[in-house]
Amino acid sequence: MITQLLVDLVVLLAAAKVGGLLAERLGQPAVLGELGAGIALGAFGLAGVHGPAAIAHDPVIEALAELGVVLLLFEVGLSTRLADLMKVGVSAFLVACIGVVVPMALGFGVGAWLLPGASPLAHLFLGAALSATSVGITARVLRDMDRIASSEGQIILGAAVIDDVLGLLVLAVMVGLAGGGAGGTSVATLAAVAAKAVGFVVGALVLGRRAAPRLFRLAALLAGKGVLFTLALIVCFGLAWAAHAAGLAPIVGAFAAGLILEGVPFAELAGEEYRLEERLTPLAAVLVPLFFVRMGLNVDLRSMATGSAGLALALAVAAIVGKQACALAVVTPGADRLAVGLGMIPRGEVGLIFASIGRTLVVNGRPLLEEGEFAAIVAMVLITTVVTPPLLRWRLGRLPAGAASGVVQPGAL
Amino acid sequence: MITQLLVDLVVLLAAAKVGGLLAERLGQPAVLGELGAGIALGAFGLAGVHGPAAIAHDPVIEALAELGVVLLLFEVGLSTRLADLMKVGVSAFLVACIGVVVPMALGFGVGAWLLPGASPLAHLFLGAALSATSVGITARVLRDMDRIASSEGQIILGAAVIDDVLGLLVLAVMVGLAGGGAGGTSVATLAAVAAKAVGFVVGALVLGRRAAPRLFRLAALLAGKGVLFTLALIVCFGLAWAAHAAGLAPIVGAFAAGLILEGVPFAELAGEEYRLEERLTPLAAVLVPLFFVRMGLNVDLRSMATGSAGLALALAVAAIVGKQACALAVVTPGADRLAVGLGMIPRGEVGLIFASIGRTLVVNGRPLLEEGEFAAIVAMVLITTVVTPPLLRWRLGRLPAGAASGVVQPGAL
Repeated sequence: MITQLLVDLVVLLAAAKVGGLLAERLGQPAVLGELGAGIALGAFGLAGVHGPAAIAHDPVIEALAELGVVLLLFEVGLSTRLADLMKVGVSAFLVACIGVVVPMALGFGVGAWLLPGASPLAHLFLGAALSATSVGITARVLRDMDRIASSEGQIILGAAVIDDVLGLLVLAVMVGLAGGGAGGTSVATLAAVAAKAVGFVVGALVLGRRAAPRLFRLAALLAGKGVLFTLALIVCFGLAWAAHAAGLAPIVGAFAAGLILEGVPFAELAGEEYRLEERLTPLAAVLVPLFFVRMGLNVDLRSMATGSAGLALALAVAAIVGKQACALAVVTPGADRLAVGLGMIPRGEVGLIFASIGRTLVVNGRPLLEEGEFAAIVAMVLITTVVTPPLLRWRLGRLPAGAASGVVQPGAL
Repeated sequence: MITQLLVDLVVLLAAAKVGGLLAERLGQPAVLGELGAGIALGAFGLAGVHGPAAIAHDPVIEALAELGVVLLLFEVGLSTRLADLMKVGVSAFLVACIGVVVPMALGFGVGAWLLPGASPLAHLFLGAALSATSVGITARVLRDMDRIASSEGQIILGAAVIDDVLGLLVLAVMVGLAGGGAGGTSVATLAAVAAKAVGFVVGALVLGRRAAPRLFRLAALLAGKGVLFTLALIVCFGLAWAAHAAGLAPIVGAFAAGLILEGVPFAELAGEEYRLEERLTPLAAVLVPLFFVRMGLNVDLRSMATGSAGLALALAVAAIVGKQACALAVVTPGADRLAVGLGMIPRGEVGLIFASIGRTLVVNGRPLLEEGEFAAIVAMVLITTVVTPPLLRWRLGRLPAGAASGVVQPGAL
């Protein structure tokens, strides 16, 4: 078992590094190369070599990859100042709302247009699958380009957190509609879902910002600086778990943990030059690429081939164009609207969750979403994931560089 | 699933840190506190709280812990100079041989004395379970005390590698005897087992020391210094896998990988101050304590209670006293014989493997080793594991400090 893991790690780390370096040589973000390396490994399956594709289903690799994206958002949070995030709060809120509503409407329209025979509920599911941004890819590009602290970066990150809360509400509504029970979801249920999620984010930040410096000061006093790193990881993993318990994605909790610990004066407590980010880098350098290579490995080219190319393309266009409406919502002076719109493009887990639920629901004796529609949603996720890094890099590269965000570049390893 | 992992990590990291700090306050090595923390968590099971004990059986935590001990031995290898290891080669070889033969004879004697009704094969199995040293605990104490580069440290590490080869041979003989077929294991089989294991160690070191500097130089030229860390991990995991394929423990491969990469001029290739050990430290700071806490968690106090305390104690005494015979084999001038003997005390996986095989074998209609004898072997492993850190620390603390080994202290995090 450890043997299999060792081989898997060798394969994935080598593929990630080769893919990442190739992409950088071609002027693309490393994350695009890591995705591509994963897709290439998965493609061996088409040739009858199933070893690499099987790695994606290994629970240990899955767990390591999930830890990777948790650490990525923790790092991103650490290089984000809560005050800067607050400054763009209005923009982030508007971006999140418009970024949910417009793609949903467009997705509904695509469904009504291309699948006139399907029920309106199916059209609504297609729309919902386009609603929520998956911030991992964008966060990675922002970090690699040292643009987390830019106002565009801050708006995208803030919107992504709000987006996750909205996605939760949409999910609650859809599950209510699909359950078909007593007229769908009650307002009280929705309010409870929203209160829990918003309560977690606000509560963690307000309490955390107050408590964390004292907690770490106490720990440094009692136990020395040797305890700081482990305690930081405990806070990160603990809040990621708490976010999940509140119905949110674990990465929202990890991001909150980073925001909280950004306010802890580590250098002062350790009595020397001490940067938590530097100590996280080697851990992230191993685990983060695992997440993106595995994301590529999960692309099932065969199941996508069963989908309707027309529906997939229309959904992808709706997903991409829909999020560009976010640009209109940016009210922060000086922020580049196009960069924000591009950064909101990637879809991920939430879209796939809607696709899975839609496939298992049976309405009038047949599944709400057929295999082909499911495959089209998967293809939409892939397309939005793959187009974002080059587009975002192109746009951010044309903007003047902002303040250095202070994140240690993975290339420095 | 990620949720469970996050909770498990929070519990294990917190327990490891609290246990480690308490132990250090009491003047004991941190690793003893981590073991104790694991045993304490496991003891919740006796009170009907099975959550913590269940963590030990989580395959993801198991995999992370195994990676931890692989990284520990990789670090230890990195701070070991092959030339220094060669200098103590004769001592290491003699220590390993005497350290296998004497405990086996004593264990056989204990069996014949306390279990006169059992077959001689059962006595032999009890002896074999005492043969092989498990170097993880000792390596950790040496690293924490910065004594890897001392001649005692080098003798113990060299002997541990040879010990693993010898343990493999003993295992082959025992499996042959137990199989009972055509007169046990043939000399040809034994020679093949030995050739594969020795071939791996010698081949990896000879080829690796030649090839590694060129490989890393080429990588730095083609892809920049960003690739060095990942490539180092790939070599470590790859050789750990190869060692397992050659029948050895993965940690022997990881140690060899460290010895090989010790010869790579990283600072020169990176064109700056670059210490691979420093970059490994954060990774090891998370994973290594998981290994030792989990080792403690695996202690099943209930199953040990079913064993005969007399047999357990006699086996433990035989195990400890037997390895003190190693002291006689130290021919390196100036090396402290007692420290070497104490460092060879811990038993681990190999002992448990013999215990498990003995329990599943049926001879004359009853199991070769009864439950109680199995439990006594488990207790012996626990006792040797727990007594080593304080004894070794006491002895090494009285010796003059050797050359700094250059390993970054985990406390520095």
